[in-house]
Amino acid sequence: MSERLRVGIVGCSGYTGGEVLRLLLDHPRVEVTQVTSEREAGKFAYFAHPNLRGRTSLKFRSAKQVEAADLLFLCLPHGMAQTQVAHYAELAPRIVDLSADFRLKDPERYARWYGKPHGAPEWIERFAYGLPEFEREALKSTSFVSGVGCNATASNLALKPLVDAGLLDTSRPPIVDLKVGSSEAGNKANAGSHHPERSGVVRSFSPVGHRHSAEVEQQLGLEGVQLSVTSVEMVRGVLATAHAWVRPGTLTKELWKAYRACYGSEPFVRLVKDRSGIHRFPEPKILAGSNYADVGFELDERSGRVVSLCAIDNLMKGAAGSAVQSMNLMCGFEETAGLGFPGLHPC
Amino acid sequence: MSERLRVGIVGCSGYTGGEVLRLLLDHPRVEVTQVTSEREAGKFAYFAHPNLRGRTSLKFRSAKQVEAADLLFLCLPHGMAQTQVAHYAELAPRIVDLSADFRLKDPERYARWYGKPHGAPEWIERFAYGLPEFEREALKSTSFVSGVGCNATASNLALKPLVDAGLLDTSRPPIVDLKVGSSEAGNKANAGSHHPERSGVVRSFSPVGHRHSAEVEQQLGLEGVQLSVTSVEMVRGVLATAHAWVRPGTLTKELWKAYRACYGSEPFVRLVKDRSGIHRFPEPKILAGSNYADVGFELDERSGRVVSLCAIDNLMKGAAGSAVQSMNLMCGFEETAGLGFPGLHPC
Amino acid sequence: MSERLRVGIVGCSGYTGGEVLRLLLDHPRVEVTQVTSEREAGKFAYFAHPNLRGRTSLKFRSAKQVEAADLLFLCLPHGMAQTQVAHYAELAPRIVDLSADFRLKDPERYARWYGKPHGAPEWIERFAYGLPEFEREALKSTSFVSGVGCNATASNLALKPLVDAGLLDTSRPPIVDLKVGSSEAGNKANAGSHHPERSGVVRSFSPVGHRHSAEVEQQLGLEGVQLSVTSVEMVRGVLATAHAWVRPGTLTKELWKAYRACYGSEPFVRLVKDRSGIHRFPEPKILAGSNYADVGFELDERSGRVVSLCAIDNLMKGAAGSAVQSMNLMCGFEETAGLGFPGLHPC
Amino acid sequence: MSERLRVGIVGCSGYTGGEVLRLLLDHPRVEVTQVTSEREAGKFAYFAHPNLRGRTSLKFRSAKQVEAADLLFLCLPHGMAQTQVAHYAELAPRIVDLSADFRLKDPERYARWYGKPHGAPEWIERFAYGLPEFEREALKSTSFVSGVGCNATASNLALKPLVDAGLLDTSRPPIVDLKVGSSEAGNKANAGSHHPERSGVVRSFSPVGHRHSAEVEQQLGLEGVQLSVTSVEMVRGVLATAHAWVRPGTLTKELWKAYRACYGSEPFVRLVKDRSGIHRFPEPKILAGSNYADVGFELDERSGRVVSLCAIDNLMKGAAGSAVQSMNLMCGFEETAGLGFPGLHPC
Repeated sequence: MSERLRVGIVGCSGYTGGEVLRLLLDHPRVEVTQVTSEREAGKFAYFAHPNLRGRTSLKFRSAKQVEAADLLFLCLPHGMAQTQVAHYAELAPRIVDLSADFRLKDPERYARWYGKPHGAPEWIERFAYGLPEFEREALKSTSFVSGVGCNATASNLALKPLVDAGLLDTSRPPIVDLKVGSSEAGNKANAGSHHPERSGVVRSFSPVGHRHSAEVEQQLGLEGVQLSVTSVEMVRGVLATAHAWVRPGTLTKELWKAYRACYGSEPFVRLVKDRSGIHRFPEPKILAGSNYADVGFELDERSGRVVSLCAIDNLMKGAAGSAVQSMNLMCGFEETAGLGFPGLHPC
Repeated sequence: MSERLRVGIVGCSGYTGGEVLRLLLDHPRVEVTQVTSEREAGKFAYFAHPNLRGRTSLKFRSAKQVEAADLLFLCLPHGMAQTQVAHYAELAPRIVDLSADFRLKDPERYARWYGKPHGAPEWIERFAYGLPEFEREALKSTSFVSGVGCNATASNLALKPLVDAGLLDTSRPPIVDLKVGSSEAGNKANAGSHHPERSGVVRSFSPVGHRHSAEVEQQLGLEGVQLSVTSVEMVRGVLATAHAWVRPGTLTKELWKAYRACYGSEPFVRLVKDRSGIHRFPEPKILAGSNYADVGFELDERSGRVVSLCAIDNLMKGAAGSAVQSMNLMCGFEETAGLGFPGLHPC
Repeated sequence: MSERLRVGIVGCSGYTGGEVLRLLLDHPRVEVTQVTSEREAGKFAYFAHPNLRGRTSLKFRSAKQVEAADLLFLCLPHGMAQTQVAHYAELAPRIVDLSADFRLKDPERYARWYGKPHGAPEWIERFAYGLPEFEREALKSTSFVSGVGCNATASNLALKPLVDAGLLDTSRPPIVDLKVGSSEAGNKANAGSHHPERSGVVRSFSPVGHRHSAEVEQQLGLEGVQLSVTSVEMVRGVLATAHAWVRPGTLTKELWKAYRACYGSEPFVRLVKDRSGIHRFPEPKILAGSNYADVGFELDERSGRVVSLCAIDNLMKGAAGSAVQSMNLMCGFEETAGLGFPGLHPC
Repeated sequence: MSERLRVGIVGCSGYTGGEVLRLLLDHPRVEVTQVTSEREAGKFAYFAHPNLRGRTSLKFRSAKQVEAADLLFLCLPHGMAQTQVAHYAELAPRIVDLSADFRLKDPERYARWYGKPHGAPEWIERFAYGLPEFEREALKSTSFVSGVGCNATASNLALKPLVDAGLLDTSRPPIVDLKVGSSEAGNKANAGSHHPERSGVVRSFSPVGHRHSAEVEQQLGLEGVQLSVTSVEMVRGVLATAHAWVRPGTLTKELWKAYRACYGSEPFVRLVKDRSGIHRFPEPKILAGSNYADVGFELDERSGRVVSLCAIDNLMKGAAGSAVQSMNLMCGFEETAGLGFPGLHPC
């Protein structure tokens, strides 16, 4: 065990922290040595994460008690990492931050979407964007990784093949209609998350102006992309239905080529587009716990309208999974280490 | 409208208050003139009960502003009615209380199960128990009606035919295994009702010692009845699976006779026991919004074990529906008035 | 009872037939005298519709045994009504057909979307389109009513205010992203409707080319409207999220005015657009069993993008409810007769 | 790879076959070399098991094409293995059969519960019962392993500590009230599994006389144990609520001792009995995909009534997981190999 990377998880009682912990407990190159939670300090980690009962005897400590480590995951509420990054950088040479604080590379863009100036603009450029499908090389040479937005990730992965192949009609920015599960909102109960109210909803909670639009525009180099988010009955999962336009006359086979060129060698992106069977398109439910992003599309050749689909587990590919994948790249581990669980069927 | 009963609902922003309001808005003999909520005072009733948008322009007022009425429904947290009943009895000659405060006729029993002395023991005997299948005659001549416990009601209706017919082997008290929905716990959010935690559970929350046992023992005249409650994925509904014993040798046709004798003329109890099809036994899901209790059974003739089943909507037959049915009896209205909705299929 | 309209329901064992039956059993001006089902002939209607146990002793007969009636509802699989309409028109002077056969007024459009010539084009013009919000006057003077498509109805009601007010940027046809429940596909089991496979899905089943597009284009007078349909975890319900564009600079208050002008006097359309609370936008779950369509919107004033929302119960406003509402208009009954159930909360 | 055990899975397109495949694809000592399905012959395995897309390029073949292997898993419909075991035993020296055919050690008991004589009684004694918590030593020295019934397994694991410690009041046989998910019924669609009908049910489908009672009586050495099974809204999972009786006066601490003695060294049984928090008792939902059985209890010390609880994933500990665990024992592998996934939270 002595060669293993000694890792701490700050803010580990939340859902993303719990998933980072689950992944790292089975990671062949890592040892988790400290986990923090202000609310649950002193309790066993499995009190907050009952699936890990029997797997770890770690107890939560206060963030004030964090000690030096080889690497720290920060799973804190948005806005806290930017004020504390310097502190944590003194304790560990490598940091993976899962909050929104270091996703946007332009502090102006941050201020516009988050409604206040960034608290540590000088740190922004030290961070690589933690989505290997976009910044694999940068991740290999960084010491600071930013997490990703779950809705942004599903949107980005749905649209990337069209952008990369130059097929997108940029005069008509895509509309991404996202269907999301309840775990996106974290583990704090509120009136809207109360089961009798939340159960079975198809609830439009962000028809326009969703903050993750900023990440999509940044990563795809587009302007005017629109995200609309609807909550559905599901705990984990996102389906991005991206309504986009290509030049009329574009053929389905050209799109196949573009999607294969984009994702053919990606270890965690699968193309799903079958002519028969139940599972003809990407669906989030079989991805719970998995780091896969399933991507597919359908083209109306007459009109040039494309519906490009991406399904992920918001806590995995949309948060903890991409974070661990990014850690693997940063640390020179096998990229897929610790991310082997394929998901379940049926479920 | 001048002949209509003028009714107020105290504590109307909760789930049972909302159901009483829904029922009374379509009741031919009633006019709802005031609704109270401390939390939502000043807001439209449909803010708390969005299904009633367009149906009423009533606004919540504070309970302090309650005025004289012909009848008051009290839908308050347990423990409050017993301290306030004298006050409300001055404002209205008739009261229907949906809390647990006046269900138990013996103050000793109340103290034992609720852990403190009853606050108004002198009022207890003035109340009739608001389940017409048990106390129809008493309800016709009372001015005070007590609500019923939802789990107690499903248990009581499942076991009544066996008790009435003298078939029950009383040396072996029944075990009632109840499966219940999330609305039983009311409309206050907490960590356990947070959707990602509550969704999809099969959660044992009261394996032994459930308070509603007291109501069952009282109404059936039994000792040692045991209720076990498990939360399942459902918003409304209770299924009581009563495991009981009759004399070995008892025949299925004898049970049919007992069940028919008990419920053959009840307007809101249906016998469900079919040999084929999907709906061979009572199921709560088709009862959402309905005042029906569906009752059925299965007998293992060799061993004398009976499984007696009762499905209800906890907010209707287990609360607001029985309360309105009791009001109808108390006021001399048609017993079924305002309770016509049969439930939905599919749903 | 002698003055009541004598009504038959042909094809009554399916979901829409069952809902028509439920509504008519409580309708003050109607008596249901015959219900048919080939599959369940000879069985009680409540065998197929367990919510109606205790409400009716009607038994299914074969369609061959249909007798004369004042009015027939046809709830047959698509394609059958056009071959049988002449036969049924001899048995009853008034017909309400819930299939897709007489929705499209142009037989060419029918042939294009349904892949074969219409079987009774001479009958098409005798039918009025059964959505009172669109064709109330025509419904008052017709003897033949066509049903509506559920997804088309949600789309049409979402977009009508923008079209009527001339606000829509017609150079950019709207994209309607629909989230739908499992009852849309009827009551026949198949591999995709098997619970372990269907439960919890967010499944894109018709990303492009949905047939209901034809009804939307027809009723709104638009070309190029695109419907995308995604199945979600829900039995009843549709949410239409219509992504549309208005002239940049259009203000929210102008949209309010348009929506109010369109629906202010409609008995079954409610505007839902609140600034606070859980229920700020239309949601299908509270509409189960109700004939309401809830409509709302959100405008991004900078870009001119509007998200217009409409929630309905697909079996009610999207089928049986609108059919009964249309019957009421056709027969001179009160338009809201038999349609009083407001929906439930919580559910 | 040459040292790996070469394994075939006969009947691999069903749910248990799919889970065996998922587990073995990540098993360090096994290589899956053939999978069969009559229905899907010629198709990729991931057509039936979409979670395995990208994980295997195996195609289904017909069972007629099965070739020699080191070990065969038989995942066939009940009744087939007993007629084919001799054939498959010629192809492979070791067999794990997941059907009900070789669970009961007494052919008389088999005939009584399954309604026909056993087809290969001479093979019965060669099989060990594949639940390591009961027959670990036998599994280490057998070449033939029988699968387990999922409901029997949850019941057996709930009751074993009481039986082993001699605490059970055997004059009152336990009642086990089981709540189960829809995957228990396999992957064939039928009217009752149709989503609009199955969704949200609390459906009593086997109130008395469940076949798995036979396995429970056999493994625990009891007579008269009663199983009642209720379907609830869940795809995977079983919760056994065992209502049992111990001598009045038995203390909770004695039960703790009995449960710890029984399961303290079991790798896949966890005791769950907490005084606070949400997860105080076993719950199936966090076990989806995991081989854990979570066991807990609650005692009413006055009456001697115990509620003993066991939650499992029916497809894992109740089928494929126990089968792989048994294979590990039979083959001398590490008992936990391939069974590392701990389950998810939230989910």
